[in-house]
Amino acid sequence: MIELVALDADDTLWHNEPLYTSTREQFRAMLARYEPVELLDERLYRVELRNLEHFGYGVKGFVLSMIETAIELTGGRVESFDVQTIIGWGRDMMGSPVDLLDGVGEAVEALARTVPLILLTKGDLLHQETKLARSGLGSHFKGVEIVSEKDARVYRSVMARYSVVPHRFVMVGNSLRSDVLPVIEAGAHAVYVPYAISWIHERVTDDALKEARYHQIAHLKELPGLLQRLGLTDATE
Amino acid sequence: MIELVALDADDTLWHNEPLYTSTREQFRAMLARYEPVELLDERLYRVELRNLEHFGYGVKGFVLSMIETAIELTGGRVESFDVQTIIGWGRDMMGSPVDLLDGVGEAVEALARTVPLILLTKGDLLHQETKLARSGLGSHFKGVEIVSEKDARVYRSVMARYSVVPHRFVMVGNSLRSDVLPVIEAGAHAVYVPYAISWIHERVTDDALKEARYHQIAHLKELPGLLQRLGLTDATE
Repeated sequence: MIELVALDADDTLWHNEPLYTSTREQFRAMLARYEPVELLDERLYRVELRNLEHFGYGVKGFVLSMIETAIELTGGRVESFDVQTIIGWGRDMMGSPVDLLDGVGEAVEALARTVPLILLTKGDLLHQETKLARSGLGSHFKGVEIVSEKDARVYRSVMARYSVVPHRFVMVGNSLRSDVLPVIEAGAHAVYVPYAISWIHERVTDDALKEARYHQIAHLKELPGLLQRLGLTDATE
Repeated sequence: MIELVALDADDTLWHNEPLYTSTREQFRAMLARYEPVELLDERLYRVELRNLEHFGYGVKGFVLSMIETAIELTGGRVESFDVQTIIGWGRDMMGSPVDLLDGVGEAVEALARTVPLILLTKGDLLHQETKLARSGLGSHFKGVEIVSEKDARVYRSVMARYSVVPHRFVMVGNSLRSDVLPVIEAGAHAVYVPYAISWIHERVTDDALKEARYHQIAHLKELPGLLQRLGLTDATE
């Protein structure tokens, strides 16, 4: 029997990647005013990767990476007015309304009736907290864990914190890299719910996906049924 | 009897404000190359305050505020080379060695032998985690709580998480605003350990400091003795 289900947040409960995608498009249009820019996404991604260990995940690191990319790609010609605009995009992203995926509100509510839920997400602490508050889903979670990285060690420490053994723990999310592989490695169950688009960083392929503890569903509302079919809960939604 | 002691991190366990102070000095020297700058600290602080609700506490928000201040104060003339330098200061701050306050290593070790300790700090998640790892103090804490704000609500939720009632909880730190006033408000004990310098934002005066549950010590190593004198622990260091 499953004792704890952890749900990822960005692109599992609410739309997130589209915000980044549309900001990248604005960024591309801005830089195009200076010179033709080839492979901007790849170059921005390289700066983001370089900054990840220093600045971590989230909007602020993304903003700092855009500023650095703009300076590098324009050879320092980017105008400070445009730098200010990039910072403004960051503030807009932080304050952007939380747009739940279709049917997720009902799915989370139904799940919470059958099994204890926690939210388990990486990224910026303040931003994830405010998004959860705005989502209106807060009351369905018995705990909220915002972590700087999702690896097997972190999953083990979350399971220890909630006194649950691996085979009674399920992680559900849209990232194979963050929500699935390290969970399988930690001996727990993982449910992959793909999102329409994903950041390059989250894309992986791996043999671990052949594991019996790996499952894939198309929508969060299929989760109670999956858990029940697996004999993991008594859920009878 | 006290069941849980929470220690603040920045400027309670390790030096932090001097990093900001020296970066502000470099920032002042940089802007002085453009024009005489009056009251730079106050103007930077105003931008930081404005950004606090968007970007939260920590180095990344500070970096973004410095960039905005530089653009505003120079009327957009700040060179992108200097913007890059500011971002580099941020990376340096994030990667800076953790410098424990004198005697704190021994004090924390002694405390951990008499009462369960947690680390309770606000700021950037990744940065605080890496600082704790570098501090070598991690093993003395039974939990680490990194929060986006320290108010009475947050203290109450931390107490609930550790199943401790207010009169059995002590918070120890260098900020009256963050480590003392909201703790008294939440009905728990607060111990103020002043640090040589403090960010303007943390400075307050308040009648709550007349409360019986408010205490002040000059150094963390006085804490076991204080708790014992108050009859709060059996500590016999």
